[in-house]
Amino acid sequence: MSKKNLLVTTDLLDRVSIKQLSRYANVFLASAVGKDELATLLPSVDAMMIFSWPKFFKEGAVSEMGRLRFIQSILAGVNHIPFNQLDKQVTVSSNAGAYSGPVAEYAWGLLLSAAKRIVEHHTAIREGRGVLVRHGDAAQGVYILKGKTLGVLGYGGIGTVVARIARAFEMKVVAFTRRSGYRPGVTFLQGERGLDKTLKESDAIVLALPLTKATTRVIDKDRLSLMKERMVLVNVARGELVDEEALYHHLKANPDFRYATDVWWYRDGRESLSTSYDFASLPNFVGVPHVSGPSGLATGQPVKIAVENTLRFLRNQQPNNIVDRTDYTG
Amino acid sequence: MSKKNLLVTTDLLDRVSIKQLSRYANVFLASAVGKDELATLLPSVDAMMIFSWPKFFKEGAVSEMGRLRFIQSILAGVNHIPFNQLDKQVTVSSNAGAYSGPVAEYAWGLLLSAAKRIVEHHTAIREGRGVLVRHGDAAQGVYILKGKTLGVLGYGGIGTVVARIARAFEMKVVAFTRRSGYRPGVTFLQGERGLDKTLKESDAIVLALPLTKATTRVIDKDRLSLMKERMVLVNVARGELVDEEALYHHLKANPDFRYATDVWWYRDGRESLSTSYDFASLPNFVGVPHVSGPSGLATGQPVKIAVENTLRFLRNQQPNNIVDRTDYTG
Repeated sequence: MSKKNLLVTTDLLDRVSIKQLSRYANVFLASAVGKDELATLLPSVDAMMIFSWPKFFKEGAVSEMGRLRFIQSILAGVNHIPFNQLDKQVTVSSNAGAYSGPVAEYAWGLLLSAAKRIVEHHTAIREGRGVLVRHGDAAQGVYILKGKTLGVLGYGGIGTVVARIARAFEMKVVAFTRRSGYRPGVTFLQGERGLDKTLKESDAIVLALPLTKATTRVIDKDRLSLMKERMVLVNVARGELVDEEALYHHLKANPDFRYATDVWWYRDGRESLSTSYDFASLPNFVGVPHVSGPSGLATGQPVKIAVENTLRFLRNQQPNNIVDRTDYTG
Repeated sequence: MSKKNLLVTTDLLDRVSIKQLSRYANVFLASAVGKDELATLLPSVDAMMIFSWPKFFKEGAVSEMGRLRFIQSILAGVNHIPFNQLDKQVTVSSNAGAYSGPVAEYAWGLLLSAAKRIVEHHTAIREGRGVLVRHGDAAQGVYILKGKTLGVLGYGGIGTVVARIARAFEMKVVAFTRRSGYRPGVTFLQGERGLDKTLKESDAIVLALPLTKATTRVIDKDRLSLMKERMVLVNVARGELVDEEALYHHLKANPDFRYATDVWWYRDGRESLSTSYDFASLPNFVGVPHVSGPSGLATGQPVKIAVENTLRFLRNQQPNNIVDRTDYTG
């Protein structure tokens, strides 16, 4: 049996990984292949490893890849992949779970930065407006977590770690998931009603849902109005889970409602720090430029996991994390 | 037996507390007593409840309090009390442990804000300098905690909670304490050598020591030089534990060394946001205006615990948290 052809469109793979893959495939690094060569190569590619969907792929490039059967994403999310253009014979694997630990740690950083008003107080000191708290009132707005309820929307890899840490803070945990589950100290809720209950009861919420048709702008005006006025909403998943306009007006109207985010809305199909409203000037907004997942890349784990899963495909084993494309198409 | 006289120099006590205390003492609220009346009252005062040492006490006022036998601090620390002026018959109780939970939560907020560069990234976005991270290098400097070592200096109430949370982050914990102890996942170290070892091995350190003669500027130039170049030092105890000048030069010389603090150095005997060096302009500095303890006041716990301890004295029971004055005098 001849080796399969694997096209790798990212420079994240180390030499050891490429060597491992080369035992089962002819590995082509897109950065080392000329443009013309690439065009010739595409029809013979069996599998691809990508970070995000390659910019150098012109519209319709995929239609030329008649032999393509497998795509491995190194990013956890796969909403960047144009499923509508992909033949149904192509299996797509996400890298769900590969960043869970680092992203969960980051979620806690955002949650505490907002709950404890660290960013707000630091900014005041930096801008010469700081006032030393003597006692009582001046520490208002520093939220205590012990005994409070944390809502986790999406109880996958990230949600599981976020919930475990919440228990060490002696918080109750409510998890909104597709499937039911059991874990001490965690209440699992499903369906529309379960979502509403999670939103109503939580003093802090971490969004850890994949972005699909069903979850796009799941946090809209109505759902924001269900939440407590005094709470912290953390987003480490995708900006598009939240309605931008509704959120801005909600933050303006509710100064004790705080939004802390690593992820941003899309402009022309790509995530962008350019927003339609001036979020950065609000004291109850904390934003960082999508660093939680990338910080996990430094550990080498996400690439390692993606390589192992690609090896499963190359060895004719069933890959893990196969995506249900109906979540993304239609 | 006649009731004792209790002078309360803070307005933090609620009505229920005052009623409880009134069963065992004549309670005088300093804010409700005129200046002249106060002068007449002092010689007959048996006990005091104070937040910090009262500003309206002139030098030598204590020498007029011949019957004084007990002082209860509502602040956790007692370094604000002028032990040199106090007769040895006066028992002083700190409020150690009363703020542990809220301060430990805050310590984690500061640790993560610095480790994850949240304050730095948010400031860049706020000032229009933000750049969206695509992958890899740009997330540099976001420290991963899992598998790393947390050093806790002072394993009292705060240190215990800080360490418990560290375990949920899957960190190793090294605790520097006076006494040895046992707790799964925590290594206890004592003495000069134990301190050096803690400083050398830690990827993050939380200072939770009381400020005494022995701990003043315990973190000096030499000890800073023992620490890893890439690490986070968190201070939720007292600013004076750290040498101001040495810290500033250390932060300038080591951009991956971060200092996140709730507490500040003294100016004319009082904590002040005015510093001798421009810490706030450094990207590896995070500062908030001493809000961690005060945030605990909002829970009502610190006052409740101080009242219960004062009741012990009034009922002729041994109070808790009696301070060893030799830690503060000489």
